[in-house]
Amino acid sequence: MKVRVLVRLKPGVLDPQGRAVHHALEGLGFAGVEDVRIGRMIELDVADGTDPATLTEMCEKLLANTVIENFTIETGDNI
Amino acid sequence: MKVRVLVRLKPGVLDPQGRAVHHALEGLGFAGVEDVRIGRMIELDVADGTDPATLTEMCEKLLANTVIENFTIETGDNI
Repeated sequence: MKVRVLVRLKPGVLDPQGRAVHHALEGLGFAGVEDVRIGRMIELDVADGTDPATLTEMCEKLLANTVIENFTIETGDNI
Repeated sequence: MKVRVLVRLKPGVLDPQGRAVHHALEGLGFAGVEDVRIGRMIELDVADGTDPATLTEMCEKLLANTVIENFTIETGDNI
């Protein structure tokens, strides 16, 4: 079963990597970019029927730093 | 307009970060994980009506290294 975990910095947490990319896009001449935030995507291939609670535990224990990051777990055919 | 760019290593490109996470999950006692791949998520806030071709150009010029990475661009209300 394919699972996609998206990890983002919480709102209000400074994202210097995002600012650098924003600045670089403007330097390349791309106008109209208002904000850029960089996060992580973790794609897991887990056993079918893995409990969603187990996936949440994986995120809380390892995949995300919940002090400064939020995570969302996506499963299904559209990923 | 919110845009989400997902950048993944191409199939066949070694992903040491993913292997490390895989190994760590097993060490924490999570069984049944078959594969882990790590990618980047870039969330952009761009002007409404930005041409999809412009977004593709941003990815090719800056956001992804197309020698070793693939990218997908997602727009719409579900992101």
